[in-house]
Formats: sequence, C-alpha cells, structure tokens
Amino acid sequence: MPVVISLDAMGGDHGVSVTIPAALSFRRRFPDVRLVLVGQQDVLRQSLLDHHAEESESLVIHHAGQVVAMGESVTHALRRKKDSSMRVAINLVKDGTANACVSAGNTGALVATARFVLKTLPGIDRPAIIGAMPTMNGHLRVLDMGANIDCTPEHLLQFGIMGSILVTALEGKTAPSIALLNIGEEEIKGNEVVKRAAELLQKSAINYIGFAEGNEIFLSDYDVIVCDGFMGNIALKTSEGLAQMITQMIRQEFNKNLITKIIGLVAMPVLKAFRKRVDHRRHNGATLIGLRGTVIKSHGGADKLAFEHAIEVALDEVQSNVPEKISAGLCKMSAEEKQG
Amino acid sequence: MPVVISLDAMGGDHGVSVTIPAALSFRRRFPDVRLVLVGQQDVLRQSLLDHHAEESESLVIHHAGQVVAMGESVTHALRRKKDSSMRVAINLVKDGTANACVSAGNTGALVATARFVLKTLPGIDRPAIIGAMPTMNGHLRVLDMGANIDCTPEHLLQFGIMGSILVTALEGKTAPSIALLNIGEEEIKGNEVVKRAAELLQKSAINYIGFAEGNEIFLSDYDVIVCDGFMGNIALKTSEGLAQMITQMIRQEFNKNLITKIIGLVAMPVLKAFRKRVDHRRHNGATLIGLRGTVIKSHGGADKLAFEHAIEVALDEVQSNVPEKISAGLCKMSAEEKQG
Repeated sequence: MPVVISLDAMGGDHGVSVTIPAALSFRRRFPDVRLVLVGQQDVLRQSLLDHHAEESESLVIHHAGQVVAMGESVTHALRRKKDSSMRVAINLVKDGTANACVSAGNTGALVATARFVLKTLPGIDRPAIIGAMPTMNGHLRVLDMGANIDCTPEHLLQFGIMGSILVTALEGKTAPSIALLNIGEEEIKGNEVVKRAAELLQKSAINYIGFAEGNEIFLSDYDVIVCDGFMGNIALKTSEGLAQMITQMIRQEFNKNLITKIIGLVAMPVLKAFRKRVDHRRHNGATLIGLRGTVIKSHGGADKLAFEHAIEVALDEVQSNVPEKISAGLCKMSAEEKQG
Repeated sequence: MPVVISLDAMGGDHGVSVTIPAALSFRRRFPDVRLVLVGQQDVLRQSLLDHHAEESESLVIHHAGQVVAMGESVTHALRRKKDSSMRVAINLVKDGTANACVSAGNTGALVATARFVLKTLPGIDRPAIIGAMPTMNGHLRVLDMGANIDCTPEHLLQFGIMGSILVTALEGKTAPSIALLNIGEEEIKGNEVVKRAAELLQKSAINYIGFAEGNEIFLSDYDVIVCDGFMGNIALKTSEGLAQMITQMIRQEFNKNLITKIIGLVAMPVLKAFRKRVDHRRHNGATLIGLRGTVIKSHGGADKLAFEHAIEVALDEVQSNVPEKISAGLCKMSAEEKQG
C-alpha cells in the first residue's frame, strides 16, 4: 500500500501557485507516494495544466467547493465551511483514505477543524503545534507554537509527554531531554502555571531537565522545549523577525557601494552556506500533535520549497507511525502511573 | 551643577572588572559628569589602582559593605542587604546626591529595591523595564522586559502611557506610535488580559496603533511595543539566543577551510559594519520606568562597552528630565480624563 497524503491545495497565502508546484516537485522525488490535491476541481486542473502536468494514479484531484480564508473566524470555518479544501483534506485522514494531511491554511481554523474531525488521543485534552527550530548542532523542537492560548499545568505536562514520544518515534532517542520555557529571575521563577507544570513534569516518567530561558531555544542541546501557545508564538515570530532583519542588513551592507558589492560576490558561497543553515523554509512543517491522525501545518506564507518540506515532514511521520507511537506511549505511561 | 551618576560597582556577572574600566572610559568622554562608584572601598581602590587611576572630584568612591549576589532571592536582598552596593547606589538617587543610578545586578532585586526606596510615580502601580531593540531603520522600545510576571490590563495601559511619554521626552516625537504584543490568530486574538488592555489603550490619549506580532519587534516602524514582563523577557532572550547563534554560524562558515578564511578576511570590513548594527551592547541600558528617580538596568553579562553604554543612557535620561516629564505627562492625562 502506498503512503497517501492529502493536501489542502487552496490553503495558505498563495494557494495553488505554491501548493501545486510543491506537490509536483515532491512527486518527482518521491514517486511512490500518492498525493491527493483537495480543492476546487477547475482551479486545480487548470493549475496542473499550467505546469504541464495532469492527474494520474499518484496525483489525484479531490473536489472541495469551499475555501477557508486566512483571516476567517474559527467558528465560521467550522460551521459554514463543511466543504472547504481544509475540512475535506482532514476528512480523508479520518476515513482512512489518506495517511496524513498538509495545510498552509489559517492556523486557528486548522487546529479547530482537525480536533473536531479527528478527535484527540485518550488522555490528551488539546492538540498542540510542535515544530523544529535550528540550533548550532541541528535542531530542537518547541511546543506549543500557537494552538492554545491559555494552558493549564496539566496541558503543559501533556505537551512534554507528547514531545518526548515524538522525538523518540522520529529520531530513535530513548530519553529525549525536555525543558520548560521560563524567565530567568530566581525568586519570581515564572507564573503559577509554569511553577505547577514544573512540579508535574518533575514527577512524570519523561526526562525532564528543568527550566530553559528564551536564548536556550537556539543555544542549548535540549530535544524539546515546552511552553504555552502564546509564548511559543511570540518566540517563533520574534525569531522570524530578527532572522529576516539580519538577512536584510547583511544584504544592505554588501550593497553599499561597488567595493562592498565585489566583496559580496567573493563571499557569496560562504554566505549561501550560512543562509542554508538558518533557512526557516527547511524547517517548515509543524505537527498538530495529540490527534488521532497526522496533520501537518505549513507556514501560511510558505513558498514552494517550504511547502514541499512540509509534505516531507508528513511522509516522515507516517513512515515513523507517530500517532500510533504517541497513543501507545500514553497508554504505557498511564499504566505505569496506575501501578506506581 | 554637574550631573551625578551613582554606579553599583559590584553588580553584574563581572563586578569591578567591568564597571571600573567602563567608568574610566566614560569619564574620559564625559569629563563633566561626576561618577560615584558604590561598593567595597578596598576593592574599588585596588581596582582603580590596577587601572592606573585614582579618586578625584569627578570619580568618587562611596563605601557599601555588602553585595547582592546574582542568584539571590529578592526578599533576602531587600531584608538583609541594606548596605549593599545596589541599595546604597539607589539611596543616593533618593537623597538627591545622584541624579541617576546604574546597576548590572540581579534584576528582581534591583526592581524591588528601586521600588521600595524610590516609590512609584502617582498613578503608576508598578515600575516596568523599557529597553531598545535594533530595527532596520533605528530602534524600537519594548516594555515590560521582565519586571512584572503577571500584569493586569491596567498595568499594560500604564506601560503604554509611560512608553509614549519616554519617547517624547528622549526623541522629541509628539505622538509616538504604541502597539500591543499579541499573537496573530484572528478569532482567538490573545488572552483576556491582552484583549481588555487593547480596549483601554484604544480609549487612552496616546497614539495606540493596535496589535503587533513578535516579528514586528524588528520589522515595524512602531516606537513602542507593550507586553507583560514574561512575554517581554521571552522575546528579548529568544532574540539574544538567535543573534548569538547566527554570529557563531557565520564565524564557523568563514573558518571552514583556508579558502573561506581568506574570503573572511576580504569580507571583514563589511561583516564588522553589519555586526556593529546588531551589536546588543550598543543597546544595553534599560530604564526602570515609573519610579520617582532614574535607575538604569544593565545586562548582567555586560562587558565594558555595554556597561559604558548603560551609563550614557542614564546621562541621556537625566539631561532629558525623563522622570519629571513622565510625572507631568501622567498628571496632564489624568486631568484631561477627569475633564473628558
């Protein structure tokens, strides 16, 4: 049986102009994976034609008449867009037609729809968004990146457990190190939720290391940093802004005059190698963790390379059986807890 | 009357090995400003000797027998360290001996001590930490950067008002643009505190623009971004971590082999110009705003250049009469509110 991935082909800031070329490029690299393009049939057919491609057994169009807009309210998307490309792509995971789904659509709508259609795993109250950030020696995962604004200590505990199981499933590490995002003051160590979450994580079966400050997202060797979706989103967006500013500043400095331009040409290969390491597109594709099915959230502004990377993340998770392993891991921990 | 600035000479990760050279370098550039070095007399005298300097009318030693440790609890520092260099340096501002004080010590202890000794301005419940971050076209200020973990909507409103008055006082702008840090989801626009703070800011007399996402700290043209101390600290520390990682990665790429090393030598002047623009040391020195006196918080790990910059920030605020202007601005706004 080939792996089947459904794509919300209409989602994201750029819709088919990004999703279709990304799908075609992915298919060239992974011809054994079947992609289901979900969206308005005419639009998708035309887009395939524009790229000199057509439907085939491994590239299927699945019609969905509606589209969830990027700024649309969660309630509206849930109630009035039952035939949206996003909803139908998730339905395909629910009914077993697809093994995973990828969408660059509206985060709030995606989380709510995925939760409504797929439901959370036993013992998990809410899905969270877990994504990778580059570090000096590779990457580190952060959750929640924006699915849950207000979290209880119990939610943060669940995030830590799920993050730990995900890293084990994807990277084969036996006891991934888990830290809790906090601020650095000694006495006033965080708010009450964070303090209580630290106690729960300490008592849990996972390899909980302790608090991490914001700079440790990039400078530590932890596997996972846990935080609520508000903080995770602030950390993520702040980093994106700074990285973008630094890139622009480097470009500006090299474009100052003829001499700096020549130096820029000489330095080009080194700068390219550096840029590749911090390129957020190569980290695009965050997992909606805690659901009975695999849903990958792509950045709304993703380009072809970034969206293609998100499809690869989906494939990787399907091949590593992530939801099954999280489910099994949760059962095991809950059984151990009852015994202990 | 010369401007007098008291320095917590024992504070910070590096103590006198940073504060004394920074003070000496500052004095060479601003010979008219009187610096009061507060700390253990013997240590300070020896340190001056080590740098071939001595006490003078413009460089006075003021003895304080105790030191607040970087990891010390706020309560302990407040109750048991009444003769600490930090406390005594702030006392000098209180009794009018100094116009401002600079400390690189323990943030929690500094905020609590400054609040206890100096008291907040009328209408202000809590002091906040306001600091500058580099942007493409200059800088932007963020508050609170870590003084207050849990904030009410009213606190965030006060932060917005103080930030607005500070920018007017320091930069002469008539209606600085103020934004509120939030996350980007449409429907679930932030938590209840942020939503309510937005309503209060909207109704206030300041130039409130609306929500800003984390990336806008670096990419926008706002003058001030308001947030609680937890978020501000996360944003600040995350940025520091990323900037450090990027610097290390660039160095690594240029050190890969002989060819990249030669390219690095050629590119050196451009890289230096870039590094200068994002050098966080040139933005060191955050203001404890909302107090009846000027206290500048330096980064704990500040080096000589960074600590010297923090002293310059203190001088700038004294010369611009920042606390008086904030006090007057608050009175004016409260009067207008009563009339309106």
